[in-house]
Amino acid sequence: MSLGQGLTNFLTSDLYGLTAEEYSLGRSNIEIVEAMITAGIKVIQYREKEKKALYMYQECLKIRELTQAAGVTLIVNDHIDLALAVQADGVHIGQEDLPPQIVRQLIGTSMILGLSTHSPAQAEAAVQCGVVDYIGVGPIFATQTKKDVCEPVGLDYLDYVVKNIQLPFVAIGGIKMNNIAEVHRRGAKISALVTEIVSAQNIPEQVAAIRQSIYRSSC
Amino acid sequence: MSLGQGLTNFLTSDLYGLTAEEYSLGRSNIEIVEAMITAGIKVIQYREKEKKALYMYQECLKIRELTQAAGVTLIVNDHIDLALAVQADGVHIGQEDLPPQIVRQLIGTSMILGLSTHSPAQAEAAVQCGVVDYIGVGPIFATQTKKDVCEPVGLDYLDYVVKNIQLPFVAIGGIKMNNIAEVHRRGAKISALVTEIVSAQNIPEQVAAIRQSIYRSSC
Repeated sequence: MSLGQGLTNFLTSDLYGLTAEEYSLGRSNIEIVEAMITAGIKVIQYREKEKKALYMYQECLKIRELTQAAGVTLIVNDHIDLALAVQADGVHIGQEDLPPQIVRQLIGTSMILGLSTHSPAQAEAAVQCGVVDYIGVGPIFATQTKKDVCEPVGLDYLDYVVKNIQLPFVAIGGIKMNNIAEVHRRGAKISALVTEIVSAQNIPEQVAAIRQSIYRSSC
Repeated sequence: MSLGQGLTNFLTSDLYGLTAEEYSLGRSNIEIVEAMITAGIKVIQYREKEKKALYMYQECLKIRELTQAAGVTLIVNDHIDLALAVQADGVHIGQEDLPPQIVRQLIGTSMILGLSTHSPAQAEAAVQCGVVDYIGVGPIFATQTKKDVCEPVGLDYLDYVVKNIQLPFVAIGGIKMNNIAEVHRRGAKISALVTEIVSAQNIPEQVAAIRQSIYRSSC
């Protein structure tokens, strides 16, 4: 997939899926990705903090095959070397990862670079550095999924980004069926949901219901 | 430093230093590397498991400057992206990291690739894969430094490597002042010591004493 195709998925999607094996009811990351693809999710991030690199590689290689065949954008969290090894469409980094300019040097110009931001200053810096393709905006609400996450920044930061930042962004953090309408009503085009998707028994049904919730927001 | 220069340091040295901040008596990895350089150690591995990538990068960048200026070979443990980002001389991986062939693709041909091995089968595989520049052989003795290490393989595995494996190797694991003579008498040319160096109050004096111990082995 070219950079353009990978980004187009991002720019035209409503949902951004992430793996989170410990919340996946005993299913593997691979099974979850298969279900997300079936559900029509077009952007999937492989996020895995615990496993040894070899097992992440083996798993992510399979996920790369599945996403490639389905025309789904695959973003790898944190591990630049893993992203390069499996030829992912992009990488997603946080504020305490390698600096974006350095990551851009490592990945070249044909991979998407996403950066988590938690404040107006971080969003402005992401714009200024000139190498970031999209930002994460959050955590909008309280979340238990990430262990090293900061306090929720609330809807105010989302409003700031919608009004002031030109970069594409994904809203993330504590977004659920019952609050996603508000997030999209305020201007988010795409939202990342973790447990609300991976913890569902039937992921395609759950995703359809989440999409209904977004749709209701625009009525 | 070219691949050749970096490897020459490896092939002509007796000691291989590693960082281990939690055993460094409150000194930073940077201070420890400075002391190792003063002590005349020519191969240093940056090993850091706990810190966020950004802080590893900032620290390792400084260590890269120090080692470069001193003509010391810098090897980065595990983190291929970090090694590339700081332009280290090489990377060192374990059996549960990205496969050596994949790592070689990521680092190109101008960086050293080291691989930990713990058995004759792993040493043979390292030779067969054709992309590894040196192997780690150990743990020779019991060690508490690494949390995810296997049981000591003892001197038998060292003897096997000396007799059967053509690749350069570094002996590692529980090597101390009082047993390094035996390791070198059996054919090791270079040994990696962690706590025995980083936990010394005066690292140059300690390294001189360790070298005396090796020297006594050849009498």
